[in-house]
Amino acid sequence: MSDLPRRVHIEEEGPREGFQSEKAAIAVSDKVRLIEALAEAGLSKIACVSYVNPRRVPTMADAPEVAAAIRRKPGVSYGALWLNQQGLERALAGPLDVYGSVRITASDTFSRKNVGKSVDDAIVEQRLSLATLKERGIPVEWGIVLGAFGCNYEGELSTATILARVRTVLDEAEAMGFTLRGIKLTDAMGWANPNSIERLVGAIRGKWPELEISLHLHDTRGLGMAAAYAGLRMGVSRFDASIAGLGGCPFAATDGAAGNICTEDFAFLCEEMGIETGLDIERLIEVARLAEEVVGRPLPGHVMRGGTLRNARRRAAA
Amino acid sequence: MSDLPRRVHIEEEGPREGFQSEKAAIAVSDKVRLIEALAEAGLSKIACVSYVNPRRVPTMADAPEVAAAIRRKPGVSYGALWLNQQGLERALAGPLDVYGSVRITASDTFSRKNVGKSVDDAIVEQRLSLATLKERGIPVEWGIVLGAFGCNYEGELSTATILARVRTVLDEAEAMGFTLRGIKLTDAMGWANPNSIERLVGAIRGKWPELEISLHLHDTRGLGMAAAYAGLRMGVSRFDASIAGLGGCPFAATDGAAGNICTEDFAFLCEEMGIETGLDIERLIEVARLAEEVVGRPLPGHVMRGGTLRNARRRAAA
Repeated sequence: MSDLPRRVHIEEEGPREGFQSEKAAIAVSDKVRLIEALAEAGLSKIACVSYVNPRRVPTMADAPEVAAAIRRKPGVSYGALWLNQQGLERALAGPLDVYGSVRITASDTFSRKNVGKSVDDAIVEQRLSLATLKERGIPVEWGIVLGAFGCNYEGELSTATILARVRTVLDEAEAMGFTLRGIKLTDAMGWANPNSIERLVGAIRGKWPELEISLHLHDTRGLGMAAAYAGLRMGVSRFDASIAGLGGCPFAATDGAAGNICTEDFAFLCEEMGIETGLDIERLIEVARLAEEVVGRPLPGHVMRGGTLRNARRRAAA
Repeated sequence: MSDLPRRVHIEEEGPREGFQSEKAAIAVSDKVRLIEALAEAGLSKIACVSYVNPRRVPTMADAPEVAAAIRRKPGVSYGALWLNQQGLERALAGPLDVYGSVRITASDTFSRKNVGKSVDDAIVEQRLSLATLKERGIPVEWGIVLGAFGCNYEGELSTATILARVRTVLDEAEAMGFTLRGIKLTDAMGWANPNSIERLVGAIRGKWPELEISLHLHDTRGLGMAAAYAGLRMGVSRFDASIAGLGGCPFAATDGAAGNICTEDFAFLCEEMGIETGLDIERLIEVARLAEEVVGRPLPGHVMRGGTLRNARRRAAA
């Protein structure tokens, strides 16, 4: 049948991925309020800010203020994204938790368009950051393959291509003295479907059974939850998600696409199937409503409107 | 592995299920325009109206006008819903296609609340309509189990309960001289999850392997597409769906929940996995935009915003 995991770990991407795609300015205090509420609802790893060029991503210009203002809950990791040595230096100078990773883009064309470098050149550039992390004793546990399920420029990517990218990532980590714990497959361009999840996760599992796999799925075309379920069936137990589905503008015709799969909907899916998440879904729903309040528009989450089945079950049991 | 079907048949529920949950009045001409556009996009069975009490469902008061105005495309079935003998007489007097079915509610409490009768009494009342259909030579091919995945009043329903309901439906049909082709399981209260789909579809398949199964799923809590995918894995090849996800008011706080799974998102899921639908998704997306225009608000469909992968694939192939 399937390899459904007993427990799933959900990493919250809403503040980082969500706020960076918002058009309007959001107050530092609102960002912090949302991050703190996410921690209170049980999320133990929260991507809070991006240390990126504020000219390219104006809504992240306040990253240092947000990072400084968070009242930390013990046991919770508050992370940041960076993309180059300069970003890493900012992250190291700030108060948030710094995790290393080896990042590689699946499609060479997308790599050139997105970071202005070929896949190989981007890897070479990354060695500097990896050396810095090594020096500072910061762990590098995950490899990340970006756009692993298809590319708007190159179309479908062969399994062999992705396996070669994983191999490169493992080799780069090893060359720096890091042993990776797992591989995160991301799909920001929204190409994944249940079949391609099965195929790619299965291929990586077959070749590197010791590696954990994490999925970062977007609900661009409505397949996010079906693809996530396909991942669960393959035994994947780590997923990125975004509160209320924050991260896209599905109701702004100019922007179009939705963002990450929705944290509370995915947690509800897991819990209904008997998979533990460690999350309090009723509280997550309150946080999802807060997210809507903070961005000032409806967000695509469903269970925040439909409600959980808790009350119906209580009534039935009474 | 899985029993993914080679081809899926999608029945369009948008006009019926969608318009009946709208608050504002919609012009007959707009309803007809949407129905005709759905037929042009390849949908071959479209639920157009409900012949129900206009005092209870005011937006269906114009059902006769809508039914009369549709310019029919050859090969397309234009259906209507009715719930009692009076509704059936109206359907028979009108121009739409009349299909019989044997309907049974899974939960006795919901049956009493919803139609004011126990499950058994509701079945007895239905015999009159079945006799009328028999007299008129109208086929009765499907049994429908309403709320098969759980009940807001009774909670989870055992597989044994649902199998007993299926047995009743088959017996009632047989007593009237009808042989059913299949069973439709509906979930308007939004309880289904991938596990319960597997369990219930598997149990019915095991007992009555000759019966087709159809799923009518709602995306109330965001699990609709994952549940539909679980159905596909079990070989289910008939699904109800609603253009643009018409049918719920996910962005009206008063109403809350979403409606049926979204036709074009589900068709996209199928096509991406190599399952034929006979539908033109680019045209469906245009119809989904028309649906938004007709109801005057954003609807929850995703691929209408994210776009299909056709252009990206073309660009990649060029």
